[in-house]
Order: sequence, then structure tokens, then C-alpha cells
Amino acid sequence: MSRQSRTSPSRQIGIIGAGSCDATISARAEAVGREIARRGGTLLSGGLGGVMEAASRGAREAGGTVIAILPGKDHRQANRYATAAVATGFGEGRNVLIPRSSDGVIAVSGGYGTLSEIGLTLKMGKPLVGLSTWPLDGSYPVVDDPEEAVRLLFERLA
Amino acid sequence: MSRQSRTSPSRQIGIIGAGSCDATISARAEAVGREIARRGGTLLSGGLGGVMEAASRGAREAGGTVIAILPGKDHRQANRYATAAVATGFGEGRNVLIPRSSDGVIAVSGGYGTLSEIGLTLKMGKPLVGLSTWPLDGSYPVVDDPEEAVRLLFERLA
Amino acid sequence: MSRQSRTSPSRQIGIIGAGSCDATISARAEAVGREIARRGGTLLSGGLGGVMEAASRGAREAGGTVIAILPGKDHRQANRYATAAVATGFGEGRNVLIPRSSDGVIAVSGGYGTLSEIGLTLKMGKPLVGLSTWPLDGSYPVVDDPEEAVRLLFERLA
Amino acid sequence: MSRQSRTSPSRQIGIIGAGSCDATISARAEAVGREIARRGGTLLSGGLGGVMEAASRGAREAGGTVIAILPGKDHRQANRYATAAVATGFGEGRNVLIPRSSDGVIAVSGGYGTLSEIGLTLKMGKPLVGLSTWPLDGSYPVVDDPEEAVRLLFERLA
Repeated sequence: MSRQSRTSPSRQIGIIGAGSCDATISARAEAVGREIARRGGTLLSGGLGGVMEAASRGAREAGGTVIAILPGKDHRQANRYATAAVATGFGEGRNVLIPRSSDGVIAVSGGYGTLSEIGLTLKMGKPLVGLSTWPLDGSYPVVDDPEEAVRLLFERLA
Repeated sequence: MSRQSRTSPSRQIGIIGAGSCDATISARAEAVGREIARRGGTLLSGGLGGVMEAASRGAREAGGTVIAILPGKDHRQANRYATAAVATGFGEGRNVLIPRSSDGVIAVSGGYGTLSEIGLTLKMGKPLVGLSTWPLDGSYPVVDDPEEAVRLLFERLA
Repeated sequence: MSRQSRTSPSRQIGIIGAGSCDATISARAEAVGREIARRGGTLLSGGLGGVMEAASRGAREAGGTVIAILPGKDHRQANRYATAAVATGFGEGRNVLIPRSSDGVIAVSGGYGTLSEIGLTLKMGKPLVGLSTWPLDGSYPVVDDPEEAVRLLFERLA
Repeated sequence: MSRQSRTSPSRQIGIIGAGSCDATISARAEAVGREIARRGGTLLSGGLGGVMEAASRGAREAGGTVIAILPGKDHRQANRYATAAVATGFGEGRNVLIPRSSDGVIAVSGGYGTLSEIGLTLKMGKPLVGLSTWPLDGSYPVVDDPEEAVRLLFERLA
């Protein structure tokens, strides 16, 4: 096995959040995506709508690379902002792949699927920042400002 | 594909909880396993120690069937109370398989791995009862008595 | 993690083969299942029809334990001979779980799905015997007699 | 769920092959990667060495996008030519993700792992071309010229 690292690998940042959301959350998610791309990060998400699509749009429009990790079997079901898409066909089983593949994760709003990914991220011991999401046990910061969320995450990655 | 149901299929009940626990939680987990077996349920768990082992012991000693769904690659790493073991080699990715394969789930104490499985169970819309675990948003009952936990779950399955 | 082995764990034997088959192959698969159970083995299969159902029937009617590892999300879709069923929801992704969880594998007839599982079994370096199936590169025996197939596999497990 | 397609999605082409290979196969794999990128395709591979690395190098140096889908848990183990990497932690279980996520697959030389992916690709009914690999049952073309392999695959995608 080649274990040679990429010469200057990007940070891979996972965005987790629901497949539908209101305009406020959508705007915050888009700003998160934009800020990740500005900092040179590659954005990973579940590749569908809502928070996933808004963050992907923000990242792509700022020139970033966006990877969709889909629950379904058809890679063409990714939203239009994906640079490339991995179709797992695993349903909720794909939830593990986003924290697994990320250097750190930002959870944006979200429901029970997002909660499961928060649990997996914490279980893996990876940096996590919440944006307007489940506060749980206080083990990670939860803020309402998207630029602050990205800044806090990159501080933890440094 | 044969979609013929088993003539009298057992209820499959998932037990989720940490790989190590104190004596109080262990006794409660064992009582949960025993009560599931008494009601004719098949117990599914992550197949390792702590809550998983105590619940498996309770079920097996009461004559029940116990299935281990392991994170690792070696099915012989299951605790000694497993009737059979599925080795996934998926790490935390196996967490999705327990709620997926269960008619209902009981969460016993637990940390972030258990939290991820709670999220997945709720996302799948399956009955969930908590025993001395994360209360979250009040969407499922959390009790401290093991027989009551099993009774509440079977009520929801009926 | 508890790594305590079960005191006298059964051999877990995977049966791989197609979801529909003719009467000759069905009778051979049933005889394979029966012979595995007679030798005290636990049978793992994909849990659907054809070879999977025939082998499961043979094992169950001889008093054996039968575990179904299903591609779909509903554990009640297992054939009626399963003692318990794991529903993966992973589609073809479940193919890896049968060789992974088995001490050895018998491939019975089969098409491309079976071929993928033969490849995975060989890649994992696990004992494999073919019954009326893909001969490939001669690296495993292929016979037409079910009792001989089981005998050859158990010799390789000893 | 957003099912909006990307406005002009790239073809996603999977390259499967062994983690080590001789110079002849490496040169062919590199030429395959280069030709895929020239045709505007995105290359998906297992992200490690041998055929995977050579094809990735060819694609990347021709300006293409390269996605690594790794068996391990650390996305930084991808070879240096990956644009982004998905770390599955699923071991051989990741084999299903490459054909699943691809419009078509080219198998380059390879052993049993490659054989399993050939089986999965055929099971999914996706276009497959072999380059100096398992001929099997004649259901897909096997050639020794890399440009011809890519040409044959793109013909089947059209």
C-alpha cells in the first residue's frame, strides 16, 4: 500500500445538516461553505438538498472542491454543486462516512440524522463545531455565526 | 427474491450501550436481556463487553437467541453469550445495523456511540426506550427500571 | 472491549449462491445445509430465495442455526428458515459480510453476485469450496457432490 | 431531497486494479487515467498504490479530477494524486463503492480484490472493459491497449 501523502493536502471539512431548511439556516450554511473554500478546505457533505446544498453552493461559488457522499445508488442525484459524488447505496449507513473522511465537522441545525453524525464525530474524537444545532452536553461549541463556526473549527485543526 | 415471511418470526430487539459499565448498569442490562428472552424476543447487540455482554448473558441464560454485530473483522471476538456473530469490519459503521435490523431498540446508559445509535433509531422511526440514558428531546421514554423498559418497548411494538 | 471467546463457538459457514435456481441445484444446496448442521456448524447466507433458501431449509430442518444477512432494510424479508436476520440496507454491499463473518465458504452455482463473493473470500484468504460453480483459476476445489463439498471445507478448517 | 442534476456532470469512471504492479501494467494504467481525463471524465479508484496510483497520476497530470475511496480510516493515506479522498474504514467493504459510484469501470490486471469488483460491476449491470485482466465468461471486452480500453468504455456509455 502506498501511504505517501498528497504533497499539500487540503483540509477535508464535513458539513452535516438536514435535507430541508428555512432561509435563515440556508444562508448560514452557504456562508459556512464559502468560508471553508476561502480557507482552502475541501467540503464533504451528504450531497442532497437543504443545508447540504446551500453549503455546497457557497463552497463551489467560492472556487472550492465539493464532494457529495450520497445515501442512494445513483451518483447523479447529487446536487448541482458537487465536484464529484460517491453513491453508497447504504441509506443512513452513509452517515458514518462523512465524519470518517473529515478532519473536522460543522453541524448546522438538523434533526435525528444530524444527531447520529454528531455522535459519530464525537465517538471518533474529531473536532466538531455546532451552528444553531443540538447543544447536547457542552462538549463542543455551538454558535450562530457561520464565520465564527469555521474559525473555531480551523483553530481546533491547527 | 423470496419475500416469504418466517412462519412465527421472533421480535428482534436491539440493545445499545457502552462497552464498559459499572455494576448497577450491568445488572440493569442483564435484567433487560432476561426479560426480552422471556417474552420470546431475539436480542441483537454490538457483541462486545459492558452493556452488550450483560444483556447478552441475561438473554442467553433465559434461553434466548443472541446475535452479535461486531465492529471488527473476527467473529470470534464476540462475547461468549452470542448464539451467532456477524463480523462487519466496518468500525462505527456497524452502528447502523443494529437499529436497522431491530423491531425496536433499548438504549442503556452509554456514551457517544450510543448517542449515534439513538439518532439512527429515531431517524428510522423505530420504537425506542431509554434506560438510564441520554434524555434528549423527550421524544422517547427514559426509565430506570429494566422490566419497565422492556414492557414499554413491547407495548410500542404491539 | 471484551475479547473473551465463546466457550465452544460453532463454526460459521457461509453459503453463497443465486436467489433463484433449478431443482438440481436446490437439492444440492439443501443437502449442503443439512450436512453443515449435522457437523454442528452455523449457516450464514444472504437470506433470500434459491440457493440461500434451500441451504437454510436443509440446515434448519437438521436442527441447525441459520443467520440471514439481507441486502434490504426489512429483516422480515428473510426466508422462513432463518433463526435470526440482519437487515443491512446496503444492497450488494452486504456481500462482503458473509465471507467476513464465516470461517469458510461454500459457493453453490451462482452468477455475478456469487462471483463477487468468491473474489472477496479469496481476497480474505479464507477456505472456499465450490459446488457446481465458477472454476476460475483452480485455486479452490469445485465438486458436484454436496457432502463432499462440506467434507472438503471442514478438512480445510481443521 | 434535491434530485436536481449537476448542470454538466462529468462521467465518473472507476479504475480497479491491484495495489502493486509491474512497470508495464503501471504504464498502461497511467495511460488509462490520462485518456479518461482528456475525455473530461472524473476518475474514481481505491486510492492506494500500484494500478490505483498510476491511473490517478495519469489523470491528475492531464488536469482531471481524481477521487480516492479508501479501505482504511485515514483520508491522508490516499496517494498524492487524489483531489479528495473518502475514508471508509470498511476494508474490502469499500469495493462495492467504486462500481456503485461509477458510470462505467475499467479493470486493469488485478487479483482477487479486482475480481470481486468485476463481479459487482457486472451484477450492477454497468459497462465494464478489461485491460490485461480476468477474461471470465467473455461478457466484456478485454484488450491490452489503454486508449482502446477507454474508447470502448466511452462507446458503451454513449
